[in-house]
Amino acid sequence: MGNSYGTLFRFTIFGQSHAPAIGVTMEGLPSGLKIDMEELQRFLDRRAPGQSKLTTSRREADAPEFVAGLHDGVTCGAPVTAIIRNTNTRSADYEYMRYIPRPMHADYPAMVKYGAEARDFSGGGQFSGRLTAPLCIAGGVCKQVLTKRGIEITARIAAIGGETDDSAMTAAVESARRLGDSVGGVIECTATGLPVGVGEPMFGGLESRISAAVFGIPAVKGIEFGAGFAAAGMRGSEHNDPFAVENGKIVTKTNNHGGILGGISTGMPLVLRAAFKPTPSIAQEQESVDIRTLEPQRLKIRGRHDPCVVLRAVPCVEAAVAAAIYDAILEAEAYNG
Amino acid sequence: MGNSYGTLFRFTIFGQSHAPAIGVTMEGLPSGLKIDMEELQRFLDRRAPGQSKLTTSRREADAPEFVAGLHDGVTCGAPVTAIIRNTNTRSADYEYMRYIPRPMHADYPAMVKYGAEARDFSGGGQFSGRLTAPLCIAGGVCKQVLTKRGIEITARIAAIGGETDDSAMTAAVESARRLGDSVGGVIECTATGLPVGVGEPMFGGLESRISAAVFGIPAVKGIEFGAGFAAAGMRGSEHNDPFAVENGKIVTKTNNHGGILGGISTGMPLVLRAAFKPTPSIAQEQESVDIRTLEPQRLKIRGRHDPCVVLRAVPCVEAAVAAAIYDAILEAEAYNG
Amino acid sequence: MGNSYGTLFRFTIFGQSHAPAIGVTMEGLPSGLKIDMEELQRFLDRRAPGQSKLTTSRREADAPEFVAGLHDGVTCGAPVTAIIRNTNTRSADYEYMRYIPRPMHADYPAMVKYGAEARDFSGGGQFSGRLTAPLCIAGGVCKQVLTKRGIEITARIAAIGGETDDSAMTAAVESARRLGDSVGGVIECTATGLPVGVGEPMFGGLESRISAAVFGIPAVKGIEFGAGFAAAGMRGSEHNDPFAVENGKIVTKTNNHGGILGGISTGMPLVLRAAFKPTPSIAQEQESVDIRTLEPQRLKIRGRHDPCVVLRAVPCVEAAVAAAIYDAILEAEAYNG
Amino acid sequence: MGNSYGTLFRFTIFGQSHAPAIGVTMEGLPSGLKIDMEELQRFLDRRAPGQSKLTTSRREADAPEFVAGLHDGVTCGAPVTAIIRNTNTRSADYEYMRYIPRPMHADYPAMVKYGAEARDFSGGGQFSGRLTAPLCIAGGVCKQVLTKRGIEITARIAAIGGETDDSAMTAAVESARRLGDSVGGVIECTATGLPVGVGEPMFGGLESRISAAVFGIPAVKGIEFGAGFAAAGMRGSEHNDPFAVENGKIVTKTNNHGGILGGISTGMPLVLRAAFKPTPSIAQEQESVDIRTLEPQRLKIRGRHDPCVVLRAVPCVEAAVAAAIYDAILEAEAYNG
Repeated sequence: MGNSYGTLFRFTIFGQSHAPAIGVTMEGLPSGLKIDMEELQRFLDRRAPGQSKLTTSRREADAPEFVAGLHDGVTCGAPVTAIIRNTNTRSADYEYMRYIPRPMHADYPAMVKYGAEARDFSGGGQFSGRLTAPLCIAGGVCKQVLTKRGIEITARIAAIGGETDDSAMTAAVESARRLGDSVGGVIECTATGLPVGVGEPMFGGLESRISAAVFGIPAVKGIEFGAGFAAAGMRGSEHNDPFAVENGKIVTKTNNHGGILGGISTGMPLVLRAAFKPTPSIAQEQESVDIRTLEPQRLKIRGRHDPCVVLRAVPCVEAAVAAAIYDAILEAEAYNG
Repeated sequence: MGNSYGTLFRFTIFGQSHAPAIGVTMEGLPSGLKIDMEELQRFLDRRAPGQSKLTTSRREADAPEFVAGLHDGVTCGAPVTAIIRNTNTRSADYEYMRYIPRPMHADYPAMVKYGAEARDFSGGGQFSGRLTAPLCIAGGVCKQVLTKRGIEITARIAAIGGETDDSAMTAAVESARRLGDSVGGVIECTATGLPVGVGEPMFGGLESRISAAVFGIPAVKGIEFGAGFAAAGMRGSEHNDPFAVENGKIVTKTNNHGGILGGISTGMPLVLRAAFKPTPSIAQEQESVDIRTLEPQRLKIRGRHDPCVVLRAVPCVEAAVAAAIYDAILEAEAYNG
Repeated sequence: MGNSYGTLFRFTIFGQSHAPAIGVTMEGLPSGLKIDMEELQRFLDRRAPGQSKLTTSRREADAPEFVAGLHDGVTCGAPVTAIIRNTNTRSADYEYMRYIPRPMHADYPAMVKYGAEARDFSGGGQFSGRLTAPLCIAGGVCKQVLTKRGIEITARIAAIGGETDDSAMTAAVESARRLGDSVGGVIECTATGLPVGVGEPMFGGLESRISAAVFGIPAVKGIEFGAGFAAAGMRGSEHNDPFAVENGKIVTKTNNHGGILGGISTGMPLVLRAAFKPTPSIAQEQESVDIRTLEPQRLKIRGRHDPCVVLRAVPCVEAAVAAAIYDAILEAEAYNG
Repeated sequence: MGNSYGTLFRFTIFGQSHAPAIGVTMEGLPSGLKIDMEELQRFLDRRAPGQSKLTTSRREADAPEFVAGLHDGVTCGAPVTAIIRNTNTRSADYEYMRYIPRPMHADYPAMVKYGAEARDFSGGGQFSGRLTAPLCIAGGVCKQVLTKRGIEITARIAAIGGETDDSAMTAAVESARRLGDSVGGVIECTATGLPVGVGEPMFGGLESRISAAVFGIPAVKGIEFGAGFAAAGMRGSEHNDPFAVENGKIVTKTNNHGGILGGISTGMPLVLRAAFKPTPSIAQEQESVDIRTLEPQRLKIRGRHDPCVVLRAVPCVEAAVAAAIYDAILEAEAYNG
């Protein structure tokens, strides 16, 4: 029951890497919305492979088909469903790993949870990074809705392999690729234009909501808001953001709080960072176990793999944050009348 | 709508710092459970003030009264409700801050969201750290339920003010107190004994669930699982945990994944760290604004305050993690029959 | 997990007949609301026993204590919790029925579900009609909120024991009482002033939401909207309500649809009827079984009982309907901006 | 937000009558389930038009395509999505009713809720009876899951136009058809084989859950369980079901309670009846209003329509009940370990 997110804006992702299709159903979009399909496609293209020589080689762009929820190209109030047909659905290549879990992938717990015979292991099945395409459809539509409200969500790569300088990051990816290895990284995301008062106390706070969405992206292992983990090493006197007035509006002089206090938006830019682990699929031979015999196995993962998922994950973070914020805004508006 | 957490184990926290009472209602506990009230009280005492000279001076222990859900001291299947009466409910001391938000507190967004006249600002109202007492009641009961299943959840202070050595941490708190300042810190929490297969894909993953619970604790600004942010700087070849067999059980030789892959438990210890910001209440004068006039104000917060909430937050993290895990286990059992 | 209802307005009922207290927590009330406590008490008194000679003898009125959510008597945005202390908590009288389920009560499934030893059988435990008192607190507060919006919810007894005339209904109750027997009845509830467009398609329709709330009242075994079961015997040409304009407003000339089409409010009065079964507790000896031995048992239920719960259930229906409508209105407003 | 139902088994219906497709996503099915596609198709065919001369003329059968959730024809643990392409998606025929709501249809509230320009009015849009096809896919799969557990759900027509005799019912439909009119009816549904203890107290009771699902079927205006509305006219002494032992099992001698006490299953057959209003689309001219001008309009609905939806609604009731029961069973199993 994890493929759905949200309360008033709720989306449900379906599909596996090699199923006939992947897709998403969105409930809670406003009626009368003209989705800008070209803008959405450009957004989806940002997560597609082949964007640069640092990602896997070019395949065809994922073009979503909207099969429900539109009438004359405009949302009609019904749930909106978009699907993407999977063109590559061969699964023979994956047979060798039916009983041998790849290190750091979801294989092992999935074998136990769903059964080694039943689980779909082809191309990662339901745990494939490919499932971030429907996430980006949902989040891309939310971004368009939010833009109309003056809210912009932008993410960027903050670090790769511990490097924060552009050319050093590129070198880190290149070096990993040459070695058949991979690297992790950090993506920073900022939301501007949020009104004050979005988010609920305690478990309904923006940190809780956004983190629940962002951890839905495969490979995310950490999240922090504002000064985040650095705040843990600071004094209150340096961390506290003083209030001031700017252009007739209450602001804080600094933004260590990252736009959220008590779980609720303050009107300052919302800032978060998500930590991505290195791509688990590496070319080097690894140690595993055959779950039937419990015999040790040397495993070599076939195929080409992104040495760094961070490059393609930037729109995914924007998408997750956009969906979480739009859902929170609807709730805030319900209460504010 | 943020005071509730969970699906199958669901608890709802109520109360404000100076309301007649605070408390919690828990739905989804097993019937026939004899809650060990002494053990629960010891657990609650761990978050009470006055535990050491590093926290605020001693007050009476919070003794919960179980007003519903027990029959002859045993859970009967009905929701379990416990309340703690607030003995100190004077609110006069706080009148000066009705229109002047304290930096880094929830005051400003709460003023906008609920209205400066309506919101309860006494002692922090519903945003008070005091609300972690009912969280600890819920989590403390979950810990007892989990212990019966062989699952133990233990948290400890990993860092304070950037220091990780015990005496350096103590010195950091002492120094902050002397200066009327505060410090943040990091709490690490470990859950052992989890079966394989707990947690759902995507947004139902353990990271999503646990982070949503842990960010419900005031002052938490970051969370990471396993190697977390450090993973972002690692190569796949050093980060990937090789599988092996130990005592007839599949394990990983290292635990960079922190017991979770694809959102699902692997049977290895679940490890997470939460970053706490420095206590926002400091004795030093701070800059604020009167929200009626938009005039700048110098604000001096009265009363004594913990220079470091981390000391008392350890059981809160255990409580949040225990509740999240118990809820996830119930869901896993529903699906596994 | 059945003690909670609602999404944006959500309330959770706790307590058992003989627990220290019963009560309710409400999330989603507007902040700044001054609850009219006298009006609320009058509403609660309508379900109290001793209202007329047709109900059980007079006991003290249930006076709720609001322990959370108010600040200076006004809602502050935090969840609102009210409790009622149970003064009569002797359970000795009920020992005889620990293993012998009373016919038509929840005893038998509760024994199996919670365990005969664990379940609270005193005074009906969590299945007692007494739990409708906290329902009436929640619904009574919702009624006040709705009145401010021009929405009025009124219920009345439509039939008792098959009789619809006032004096025949009274006679039916009296006759049942004399015989140590009981009778059922029908309550009709009307909501006026609803705006057009409240309710969602399919399972989010007003019929789905309201029926889920009303079936939460013990003894309800049927519900119908508008012409209801009578519609099943009608022709479309007689059942269809023609549209017309009245005072510049679109109305229907008749109201067979009961104010709901496609699950969504039409602006016409919302009309529903709920069928209540006869009180299961009757003075006559009944057949049961000892669940330990499977031996047949003759059971005689002790104490005095209402021969007809319908008399006291009128405010309960209003309460359930009010809560369901308020929750639906908040959702409609979220989507309508 | 009404197109989803359930907690542990949750399905989301999407599509409109003339959208490219309609379909459903199901979360919470067991992994390793081989769906019997032929049996499912037979079940779907029961709601297809052209079943008898009493329904609209024959069109092609709706053949669902399973685009996600299966691996080698077996559920793999991922959400299961099935779509049905709409072959007839002309909308020109419906233009005349863009601003003129058809009596007793959802048109008018939908115009207000979604906007007359935005809402999809072609063929009833999202309110079309066609959306019961994906409901039957979800329910048909649940029925297969339940059958494996020994639970059978069967519905039948209990009355049409007030008649309960087979040939009188047929005559009532024929007569309505000849007159360009329609008739309503009642469907009775029985579930056998349910274990004791399924369902939760209060709002989580089986009546609340099942009614919320059944009212999701267009045209349902009433529901009753066991003796239902008849119980309201009975004495307790005749309504109460005595307990007895049969084949070593506790049963009741009669079944006025319809298999549910206190919201929880008793092990006796679960019995409910749903009242369907007459088809709102009739050939006779009707009174409406142009919502732009508020001028009265004579409206004649074009096309052929079923004079009685009850004939095709039988599997829909089975489907809704099956989904509700399967969801409740999963919850019961979570709590019973």
